Amino acid sequence: MHQTKVKVAEDALDANTTIATANRDDFDRAGVAVVNLMSAPGAGKTTLLERALAERGELRVGVLEGDVQGSIDADRISALHIPVVQINTDAGFGGECHLDANMVRSALGDLHLDELELLVVENVGNLVCPAEFSIGENAKAMICSVAEGEDKPLKYPLMFRSCELVVINKTDLLPHLDFDVERLITNIDRVNPEAEVIELSAKTGEGVGRFREWLFRITDRVGDPAGESAAPSPAG
Amino acid sequence: MHQTKVKVAEDALDANTTIATANRDDFDRAGVAVVNLMSAPGAGKTTLLERALAERGELRVGVLEGDVQGSIDADRISALHIPVVQINTDAGFGGECHLDANMVRSALGDLHLDELELLVVENVGNLVCPAEFSIGENAKAMICSVAEGEDKPLKYPLMFRSCELVVINKTDLLPHLDFDVERLITNIDRVNPEAEVIELSAKTGEGVGRFREWLFRITDRVGDPAGESAAPSPAG
Repeated sequence: MHQTKVKVAEDALDANTTIATANRDDFDRAGVAVVNLMSAPGAGKTTLLERALAERGELRVGVLEGDVQGSIDADRISALHIPVVQINTDAGFGGECHLDANMVRSALGDLHLDELELLVVENVGNLVCPAEFSIGENAKAMICSVAEGEDKPLKYPLMFRSCELVVINKTDLLPHLDFDVERLITNIDRVNPEAEVIELSAKTGEGVGRFREWLFRITDRVGDPAGESAAPSPAG
Repeated sequence: MHQTKVKVAEDALDANTTIATANRDDFDRAGVAVVNLMSAPGAGKTTLLERALAERGELRVGVLEGDVQGSIDADRISALHIPVVQINTDAGFGGECHLDANMVRSALGDLHLDELELLVVENVGNLVCPAEFSIGENAKAMICSVAEGEDKPLKYPLMFRSCELVVINKTDLLPHLDFDVERLITNIDRVNPEAEVIELSAKTGEGVGRFREWLFRITDRVGDPAGESAAPSPAG
């Protein structure tokens, strides 16, 4: 009796993981690698994607845009002739602050997975909850803007810990800020010593090549069970 | 039977409002006005408070700091000899992305409300959920940094709609950004034409005086039932 009860509780907590695993199976079957891209509002996710995907060669890339409301970012990506689907999370009370596996699953019908090799999911701008919900991705990455301050890894540790890549964006602003990049990197290292760090300016394009290489390399992981599990890793 | 069922559902949804109302009663009884200050991560809430509260004269101000983890901001405010209490929201799964009325209530015992005239609650950095949870405040205000882009009111409409004051911060960066302040103000106006807008730079201090005046004027509302109810206003 006791065990059954515990199992029910676990099932409830794991509903997202179950759907994430189903997403991942679909991604693997279709041969598409998926990157979950996260950041605070206004850190530059869409601008970086525009820059990086403008030079995609023959790679067949799709984008899934998550926003509380509107389709501003989807329209920007669509202008690059990239297939894009917008998910709005505002159906609920005041809007969901993250994408979960089921929201992503609801968009898969419009995505034509079989025609893609790489799918980038641009999550809702938020440094807390998006890190808690796996969507079945092969890799999680985040962007931190130098306009945000060096203390963010210490204030939002799960986000920085859950990502294998931390992009430091808006480096073009550094001459105009009291910002110590080394201190930010030290703070990233304190919460996630394994993280790869790329400094760049999506505005000027400096450093974007390194991000593009990282992004396109994720396609090597399709069907690789060792490459980032679909389960969340909220190692508190 | 039908009506009873509906009532139960409403009660569950309104639990936060019930506690917010209890908070507000306590605030009124103690004669303290409360401001709920919100923004995306790194928009400059703490720096603005440091600047504004450094010149508080005889006004007895307290601060309640909300963060997923750590006490960096509370330590900064404490250095100004201002009573401050830190709430960490990381007790749950991966951390709560907002303060709710019950979290604020849990901190009231350490606040010595009777010794205060103004309490500023610095919410968790997030443009979605903090706007959904009333804490019993007299006024909601938010900060939008010019480094975040002009589209934020359209992407996070509830946050901009729920606040009576929108601070546009980091104006010192304007010469170095492709940022159109008028377009941001137009977008604020589209979602909340009633909002007061103050442009300032918490770094240089320019414009901070106007914010300070707004903040200190909130003390006039203590016990005024007409001044911003404790109920949330998620007018979708």
